[in-house]
Formats: sequence, C-alpha cells, structure tokens
Amino acid sequence: MSSQARVARAKNSSPAAALAITAGKVRMRDRIFETACELFYQHGIRAVGVDAITAGAGTNKTTFYRSFASKEALVAEYLREQVRQYFKVWDEAVGQFPKQPKKQVEALFERFLRPNDGPRCQYERGCALGNAAVEIAEEDAELERIIAEYKAEIRARFRKLARDAGARDPGVLGDTLMLLMEGGAATRLTFSDRTGPAASIVKAVRALMAAHAA
Amino acid sequence: MSSQARVARAKNSSPAAALAITAGKVRMRDRIFETACELFYQHGIRAVGVDAITAGAGTNKTTFYRSFASKEALVAEYLREQVRQYFKVWDEAVGQFPKQPKKQVEALFERFLRPNDGPRCQYERGCALGNAAVEIAEEDAELERIIAEYKAEIRARFRKLARDAGARDPGVLGDTLMLLMEGGAATRLTFSDRTGPAASIVKAVRALMAAHAA
Repeated sequence: MSSQARVARAKNSSPAAALAITAGKVRMRDRIFETACELFYQHGIRAVGVDAITAGAGTNKTTFYRSFASKEALVAEYLREQVRQYFKVWDEAVGQFPKQPKKQVEALFERFLRPNDGPRCQYERGCALGNAAVEIAEEDAELERIIAEYKAEIRARFRKLARDAGARDPGVLGDTLMLLMEGGAATRLTFSDRTGPAASIVKAVRALMAAHAA
Repeated sequence: MSSQARVARAKNSSPAAALAITAGKVRMRDRIFETACELFYQHGIRAVGVDAITAGAGTNKTTFYRSFASKEALVAEYLREQVRQYFKVWDEAVGQFPKQPKKQVEALFERFLRPNDGPRCQYERGCALGNAAVEIAEEDAELERIIAEYKAEIRARFRKLARDAGARDPGVLGDTLMLLMEGGAATRLTFSDRTGPAASIVKAVRALMAAHAA
C-alpha cells in the first residue's frame, strides 16, 4: 500500500493514527532536510547527491521525492534556511549592544568567525551562500537570486552600521567591513581558526573603525 | 595503427614526420589543458567533466587519457598553473614600484581586482584556488596542499609588504590586506565589478595603510 493510501485509510479509521503518520512524515522530511544541510555545508552542493542524503538520513529515494520535488528545490530551501539562520545570529549579535554601533560590528565578527571551540561559528567552513556562488556559476537563476539578495542585504547592513557609527565615508567603511567578513569566511576554508588571518580580525576591525571615525 | 606505433614508424622513416606528429600531440595536450583551465575557472572543478573538456577541445577521451592520467591529475595541474600565473602577475605589479611598498600594495589590488573592461582581472570569478577549496573539502590531500601552500605564500607576502611599509603591527596589517583581497575575490562572484564592494577597494587599502603607519 502506498503511504498516501495508508494516510487516507488511517484518516478514515482513526484521527490519532492519521496524526501519527503525518507526524512521522514531517519528522522524516525534517531529518532529510537536516542531513542535507549538514552535508551540503561540509562537502558542497555538487559533491552531495540524493543517494548520500537518503543514506545519511536512513531513508530511500521514494521517500525523498515525496518530501522534495528535486535536489535543486532542496538546495534552494537549504540556502534560504542558511539566510534565515545567519540573519538570526546577526540580529542577536547586534541586539546585545543597542545604539553602540562599534560594539555591534565587533560582535558580528566575533559571532560569525569565532574559533571552533565554543558554540559553532557561523562561517566555520566559509559562508554557505558564498560557497554556493562558486558552485552554481550562471546555471540556476533562483539560486543566484537567493545568493545575490543575501549578499546585497549584508552589504546594506554593514553600510548602515558604518553610518550609525558616524563614519566619514560610510559607503567605503561599510564595504570594507563586508570585504573583511567575506575574506574571513573564505580563509576559514584553508587556515586554522586559531592561527589563520581571521584570528585577529576583531583587532583589524577595531583599527579600521577608529581610522574611519569622523 | 595506434598513435604510438605511428610515431615509432615515423621516427624510423623520417625525422621531420616524427617531429610533426610529436608537435601535434603537444599541441593537442595544450589545447585540452587550456580548455580545461577555462572551463574549471568559469564553472567549477566539479561541474566540468572529461566529456565537456574533450568536447570543448574538439577531441576524444582516448586522446585525453594519453595526455592526462586522470581528471584529478588535470585539476592539480590546473591549480599549479593558476598559482604560477597569479605569482607572475604579483611579481609584475610589485616590480613596477621598487622600494615603494604602499604603491606595491595598491598595484596588487588594482591588478587582481580591476574592472573587466581592460586586460582580464585575475580574480574575475573569484580566486581559482579559493574556489577549489570550496569544492574539494577534505577529499584530496594533494589539491589541499597546493591550495594551502598558495594561501600561506600570499599571507607571507602581504605580511612582508606590511613590514616593508613600516607598519606598527605588520602581522595584523598583512593579514587584514589578505582578508580584503580574499573578500574582493569572493564578492566578484556575486556583485558587478563596477558597483560591488570591491569597486572601492584601492581607496579602502589606502586608508588602511595610512591608519597603520608607524
């Protein structure tokens, strides 16, 4: 019997049984999604196929395609989820220091690029969106759009922080901060978190903010 | 008759004919290599298979495998060639301004990240080595080593330039310059060369060098 038929029959016979089956489907979808997110981030979106995802989630292709229309659809959802998570972390970091733009900027670099021993750093293996930009080239308009919007929003936020900090040229300072964050994410792919160029990034940011003070 | 047999027979019969065949083989190897370099850089090393390379070079798999032991060997050669090219451009940029470290640094950012209208910018679609780092994860020790050595050398060179410029803390300045260059390369994947955050990078570098002056 197909899963749909099973759900339909269960719905007719017992609301509790139907709910249990629906919950099971939701949990499996979540498990596939979480497995895919982890694998995509660690190995890249091209290196990870549907087989690896279903094996990692302990399921099969039939179940996979009941949850996701295609791998491309799953990748788009993965990128959107990363955007949500990154901005959640961003808002938390900034929210710690209301009306203190310099401290807000430092907190952002601290949170996104901190060494790996405490809570997970967001850019441990680079920026998920930046990494995807390497892999998709100009082949997928929807993924391109998600990445471009994320990066444009990050740029606008850094420029706003530079304005809030009263920088002489907030456009240049904001862009410089963005380039440092992007560079920090990129170097985490090659260098150690403790000794790489991003290890002293908060010091660099502090000097930069001081130099741009009006 | 196999190509090897043809070469052997030509060698016995006519030195000129043998030379022509050898030259033809060398040219085909070069053509395959150039095609692969272009495709790898534009689309990524995973997205481009041997089929696409042979189609692009107008040859076939048999000829491909006479020139390269495997796709992995070709990727390693591609990365080594990019390293050679990048350092050639680096040395040219620095060589324009002997004993003027600030101008040398500006020239590097100008050369690696200039807009696309003149001679090709080196980091037009990001850094080839950095892009490869996204795609290979921890799966290929040789490629990892090529990338790590390249990035370590870039870091050492920026730190030396910061020392030459008499910076108070050449370690931090050198690393900050490297992060800016890496960030510039990364953002070229998403933003326009004329309006993206890397467009004003030379201005940012100038301000940074001034702020770090002893």
